[in-house]
Amino acid sequence: VRLLVIGGDAAGMTAASLVHRRRDDAEVVVVERGSYTSYSMCGIPYLVGGVIDEPEDLVTRSPEQFRERGITVHVRTEAIAIDPDARRVTVCDLDSGDEREEPYDALLYAAGAHPRVPDLPGLAEHGYVVHTLDEGERMRAVLDSGGGIEQVAVVGAGYIGLEIAEALIDRGVGVHLIDRSPHVMKTIDDDMAEVLEDALTDLGVDLRLGEDLTAVRVGDHGGREVVTDKGCYPADAVVLAMGGAPNVALAADAGCAVGTSGALVVDDRMRTSVPGIWAAGDVVESRDLVAGLRLNVQLGTHANKQGKVAGIDIAAQPDDGDAAFPGVVGTAVTRVCQWDVARVGLTERRASELGIDIAAVSFTGTAKAGYMPEAGTVHVRMLAERGTGRVLGAQLVGTGNVAKRIDVAAVWCQLGVRVQDAQFFDLSYAPPFGGVWDLLLVAARKLTAALGLTPQL
Amino acid sequence: VRLLVIGGDAAGMTAASLVHRRRDDAEVVVVERGSYTSYSMCGIPYLVGGVIDEPEDLVTRSPEQFRERGITVHVRTEAIAIDPDARRVTVCDLDSGDEREEPYDALLYAAGAHPRVPDLPGLAEHGYVVHTLDEGERMRAVLDSGGGIEQVAVVGAGYIGLEIAEALIDRGVGVHLIDRSPHVMKTIDDDMAEVLEDALTDLGVDLRLGEDLTAVRVGDHGGREVVTDKGCYPADAVVLAMGGAPNVALAADAGCAVGTSGALVVDDRMRTSVPGIWAAGDVVESRDLVAGLRLNVQLGTHANKQGKVAGIDIAAQPDDGDAAFPGVVGTAVTRVCQWDVARVGLTERRASELGIDIAAVSFTGTAKAGYMPEAGTVHVRMLAERGTGRVLGAQLVGTGNVAKRIDVAAVWCQLGVRVQDAQFFDLSYAPPFGGVWDLLLVAARKLTAALGLTPQL
Repeated sequence: VRLLVIGGDAAGMTAASLVHRRRDDAEVVVVERGSYTSYSMCGIPYLVGGVIDEPEDLVTRSPEQFRERGITVHVRTEAIAIDPDARRVTVCDLDSGDEREEPYDALLYAAGAHPRVPDLPGLAEHGYVVHTLDEGERMRAVLDSGGGIEQVAVVGAGYIGLEIAEALIDRGVGVHLIDRSPHVMKTIDDDMAEVLEDALTDLGVDLRLGEDLTAVRVGDHGGREVVTDKGCYPADAVVLAMGGAPNVALAADAGCAVGTSGALVVDDRMRTSVPGIWAAGDVVESRDLVAGLRLNVQLGTHANKQGKVAGIDIAAQPDDGDAAFPGVVGTAVTRVCQWDVARVGLTERRASELGIDIAAVSFTGTAKAGYMPEAGTVHVRMLAERGTGRVLGAQLVGTGNVAKRIDVAAVWCQLGVRVQDAQFFDLSYAPPFGGVWDLLLVAARKLTAALGLTPQL
Repeated sequence: VRLLVIGGDAAGMTAASLVHRRRDDAEVVVVERGSYTSYSMCGIPYLVGGVIDEPEDLVTRSPEQFRERGITVHVRTEAIAIDPDARRVTVCDLDSGDEREEPYDALLYAAGAHPRVPDLPGLAEHGYVVHTLDEGERMRAVLDSGGGIEQVAVVGAGYIGLEIAEALIDRGVGVHLIDRSPHVMKTIDDDMAEVLEDALTDLGVDLRLGEDLTAVRVGDHGGREVVTDKGCYPADAVVLAMGGAPNVALAADAGCAVGTSGALVVDDRMRTSVPGIWAAGDVVESRDLVAGLRLNVQLGTHANKQGKVAGIDIAAQPDDGDAAFPGVVGTAVTRVCQWDVARVGLTERRASELGIDIAAVSFTGTAKAGYMPEAGTVHVRMLAERGTGRVLGAQLVGTGNVAKRIDVAAVWCQLGVRVQDAQFFDLSYAPPFGGVWDLLLVAARKLTAALGLTPQL
């Protein structure tokens, strides 16, 4: 059996390794457009910021290492067409320009996503994107060269935008952070976002929210300028962090169904609608177990699990049984300006859009027992469904290394636990780690009361 | 309705406050043997160590504050007999020695536990215990007085013993730490305990494990000595941290059933076997949801929840509905010598005693992504039941503020989640908080393989 993998990052290489390991008779071939395989995309802001020294530090396994294990990896090789009937893919060597055919029995399409770059004057020409390790390396080199980068405009105030903004400030570079939304991080509710906005402003970031990008241009004095509907900001470089769009085109051309999310439709074994083609990672949509919809969530955690599931299905070894990817609950964490930001499930805004009747509570607690030195501050928010009390989401913005605490709420969301039951869970306590009532238990207790459910502790 | 509460700490004051708040017609009276109400027992080692300045810092609410709210609190007042038929309690004012009767409609018995002090020569005379805030305050005063405390023997290497040992070392006091067990912390498995033993030794603690205390005496040179079956250690003071025994005597004399654990038997509404008497906190036994037994677990988290449940049942307001304490899964955390220690469920040793057939995995990971500076070290252990794959326990010993991560395993234990499902949970990831596979997901994945279950990711 010949497995061909398009895309050599988390999903692709996970599946490639698994199939290679489980089937002696498998020939595994990977084509990757970039120079690197299996790297941590999430680590790129730390490379840009200088926390990490070398691009190679972010690489889990290099093409050479995969080759040593018997997996064929072609880097700087782009897939340009899929023929699902003949089961072959036309690929192009990006250095030589040569094209050739790669046949397959099974094809895993793990082509990832590409940065969204709106069709506005000057963006394609002047904007940096930092979506791939190659791009991150390029940006790092520009900053290291000392070539007069004193002021950068970052467009997009999501995770990546905020992480890059902080990385730049840490390097002594001034930052304009621009987003059309009235708040940073659309994935958390406004009261939580405001905590981060204050922190970013305190750090010296010039925050330009509610401003719509219109152009990037060269100004009268020869320097670049970012133009919005409300102002014009000089910038030696412009970083576009406006999210990613799944690279579906090639698969869609081959007949693979694309969902309303814009990503590829797959079943829970990661099979596309075309026989012989699996897909995994940033390019697919996943079942959102909270909202009951299908969404495109671009995260390494999902890509890794989906790669495993696809690999097991492709390898089809009787001992492996069936593997099914259950879906996601929207768990995500980051650290910005000393604040941990963690979220899961629905925001209040999103629940309202979906017509789900919820109650939400917000309050502020501490990361250690209140009487301990440096007890920290944690802003907590939790949402539950009216009537049932089912936990539908939670958010934490806090100091004191609290991000991973969201995982309890993630498990509650994934299992449909109700707040009136959640308040009784045996969660840990000791003075260095919080009060005797864990913050999520307090949230569940407050929600039980807010929803008029019992028992009200 | 007149509620009388015996014991003014977590369980007692929680119930007292709830009943007072929910019922206008309730008269709530509390008798407490010590000087303080509602304080954090877990904070005492930090008071002894000087991390916290004043005993009052550990007090959530003082007797005066309760009185201002309309709850009658008698401190330094000990209950000495319960007459369940006449529904009255004989109490003694410890300062005046006067006795009097306190009638009740409902009695909450929340008398806590007392330190175990074996009946060995010299122990009662020379040993300090630090179970109550009064005792902690006394020990702190002795240390602060500079009265020549240069060397202390701590007997008992459980949580409190370890925390006190570290607190003493931090104050520049030498410590012999003595325990009859071959390892510290019987609540974790040996390989995990060894990590702590190395850390304690590195810190300068003189670790004397597998040694049985036989006496405390005044030696030839006039100083105190701790004697074991293997040696004799000079000590200016001896701290006994050998665990606590529930204060059941008074309730048992009144006819309340005592379970095999040695603690009071209660139903899930915290009712004892005697009508009109409820019990909560360190004095009761709780259902262990993992082992299916009833155990006495002395922790503030349970005391608080049980106090709420008892209060709701006593207040008996129709709007409150029924409250039931579901039980515990043995979640516990602490920090010792920079290492977070976290555990839940069964240890391998305990599973073996109970005849439960399990598989266990141990491995070492990092608290941040491996490529991040100061990524930390986390030793992970997880256990699951053979056949079903049900998660039965987990342990973490790690640097980098990882203790609260045990809560995910606690929820899995509480809900009977199986490792083959656990490995797919949507747990959070970003480089400051770990690798793309959360450590508990890795543990679940390894256990799925170890148990021969599918899918093996």
